Amino acid sequence: MATQGQVITCKAAVAWEPNKPLVIEDVQVAPPQAGEVRIKILFTALCHTDAYTWSGKDPEGLFPCILGHEAAGIVESVGEGVTEVQPGDHVIPCYQAECKECKFCKSGKTNLCGKVRSATGVGVMMNDRKSRFSVNGKPIYHFMGTSTFSQYTVVHDVSVAKIDPAAPLNKVCLLGCGVPTGLGAVWNTAKVEAGSIVAIFGLGTVGLAVAEGAKAAGASRIIGIDIDPKKFDTAKNFGVTEFVNPKDHEKPIQQVLVDLTDGGVDYSFECIGNVSVMRAALECCHKGWGTSVIVGVAASGQEISTRPFQLVTGRVWKGTAFGGFKSRSQVPWLVEKYLKKEIKVDEYITHNLTLAEINRAFDLMHEGGCLRCVLDCQV
Amino acid sequence: MATQGQVITCKAAVAWEPNKPLVIEDVQVAPPQAGEVRIKILFTALCHTDAYTWSGKDPEGLFPCILGHEAAGIVESVGEGVTEVQPGDHVIPCYQAECKECKFCKSGKTNLCGKVRSATGVGVMMNDRKSRFSVNGKPIYHFMGTSTFSQYTVVHDVSVAKIDPAAPLNKVCLLGCGVPTGLGAVWNTAKVEAGSIVAIFGLGTVGLAVAEGAKAAGASRIIGIDIDPKKFDTAKNFGVTEFVNPKDHEKPIQQVLVDLTDGGVDYSFECIGNVSVMRAALECCHKGWGTSVIVGVAASGQEISTRPFQLVTGRVWKGTAFGGFKSRSQVPWLVEKYLKKEIKVDEYITHNLTLAEINRAFDLMHEGGCLRCVLDCQV
Repeated sequence: MATQGQVITCKAAVAWEPNKPLVIEDVQVAPPQAGEVRIKILFTALCHTDAYTWSGKDPEGLFPCILGHEAAGIVESVGEGVTEVQPGDHVIPCYQAECKECKFCKSGKTNLCGKVRSATGVGVMMNDRKSRFSVNGKPIYHFMGTSTFSQYTVVHDVSVAKIDPAAPLNKVCLLGCGVPTGLGAVWNTAKVEAGSIVAIFGLGTVGLAVAEGAKAAGASRIIGIDIDPKKFDTAKNFGVTEFVNPKDHEKPIQQVLVDLTDGGVDYSFECIGNVSVMRAALECCHKGWGTSVIVGVAASGQEISTRPFQLVTGRVWKGTAFGGFKSRSQVPWLVEKYLKKEIKVDEYITHNLTLAEINRAFDLMHEGGCLRCVLDCQV
Repeated sequence: MATQGQVITCKAAVAWEPNKPLVIEDVQVAPPQAGEVRIKILFTALCHTDAYTWSGKDPEGLFPCILGHEAAGIVESVGEGVTEVQPGDHVIPCYQAECKECKFCKSGKTNLCGKVRSATGVGVMMNDRKSRFSVNGKPIYHFMGTSTFSQYTVVHDVSVAKIDPAAPLNKVCLLGCGVPTGLGAVWNTAKVEAGSIVAIFGLGTVGLAVAEGAKAAGASRIIGIDIDPKKFDTAKNFGVTEFVNPKDHEKPIQQVLVDLTDGGVDYSFECIGNVSVMRAALECCHKGWGTSVIVGVAASGQEISTRPFQLVTGRVWKGTAFGGFKSRSQVPWLVEKYLKKEIKVDEYITHNLTLAEINRAFDLMHEGGCLRCVLDCQV
């Protein structure tokens, strides 16, 4: 390609400061170095983690930066030594890397990968501990190893999942974060069995994906808990069979659920990021075996707590990141499942805008009725 | 037997009030009613749960009562409908019942049994919601459904494990609580695999049984953590390979262990009942898969806490009661393992006294060097 080896100047949404509107800038994107891949991002969605870091509440947030981590695109060029993808490949950037070589990847017990974490955690690339983004010579930090709010981005090769080119990128971009997180929380982390009673706290995209995963696993009851009753109609389409609004009850929500289920649920999922709800999610579990999975990301410094008796009497407290899916190995599999209509994706997309409209998209996230907003990056 | 159907008057150690010395009294023990078994207790040991309730700190503690839950004896008589044991059988009373019929027993997921909990939790028998113990007509509460600090006790039939009469009761009485709790925490709850790195917080009887279980499971490193360095010599005999004294370090103990193990341990066990240590035990686990099991019983009202990030990045927090062993089914199996010299029991017994010396035995529990004190109840 004509751009290979060259700096590309393109549009990107730069977060110059916390909590200030993103600015569409002409950004210089350096060529990929060894082990790196430059991707033309066609579509990106927004996720609450982007909003969290943008808000300034994330103590590890670095500014200026280019946010975004749920996207799809096409490889523009690759750096030295990159063998698993090549220009033209359709890909999903993965904030959770998979190197297949580190202690984590080889453990067979986790999808977390340690290979590039020390760089992606501080907004740079491994090779030279520098950013590939700049505006008029000023470096702009990467974010989560993906930085998809840009027409071009550079990622580590261990963070790229090559997918079937038949998949519509304006849909499967969602398989970069929220939908797999929910499905995997059920299938990989909790391992919900047929006949189980499941409670889901928070009916946003992740919570609905949990419902979909639980339905596929054969759960007998899927109880959705949310303070917005308008979400129930949508939730039904994803498998939720009952709806509980904590505001309708005087009793603590965990007690409401215990009463409703003859002793508690088999599995619960916290999909909000609220530490009080995380406690309720644990405590609504059945004595002896109930398992609660923390899926939501709490604000920095907040802590969960409970009486140890809850665990001594058999409840299990776990968490999940990217639903336990190994990114490079399993995102392509999720894309295939989508193409075979075995999992929903389109149904989570409530809005379509352009990259230039990104601030409007952030506003939409906080409005009821918005699940995922997909931005077209190339117009 | 001559005593069958009769009230038996015998010696028992009565806790009249919290935190006051137990008093050896002549206690009337009523005959067993339907579904009940009267047991001649030959030997009982003391456990920290007895001391906890005795101290008055247990808000569910009822007085006057007869404490004790780690013992062995011989069935004296049985009530109507009792078929699984008969007079003369050697038995271990089990505070954790196993009815084989309730939702819990049938779940296949837990050893907790719901059958008699509503009675044993409040110091009475199911049949008439009354006690079988009295002193001069004044009822004395049962404790944990066992009340083994007595020459005779009455328990529910679902709380009696029939064991091989070849087993020495002055030893296998320990299989009523502490030793199975530790072994089972490793084998049933954590399911430690060969090659694992294990951390044990607290090197009392339960902690040493965890070490023994971990050694049997093939753990590669068994790290004992205790503030009493004198415990290390004993601990070596139970499988502990390394010793860490938190007092020797400036850093938080979880950080010491993470540094010592290249990222954390695979499994940790809290065998003290201290909520701060429970947190350290979780946080010393390896990211991605480390599992922490709460074995110790914390004082009422105390809470555990941590950052949810600990769980989201793959650590698992669980607990165990009676090590996950199904009491009636598995205590006899543990007795067999002891007879085949596959598990230690004798080695935990550091003192032998008589029931009359029980207050001295409680004092011993708080002295270094005491693991288990076995009381001969019939002298």
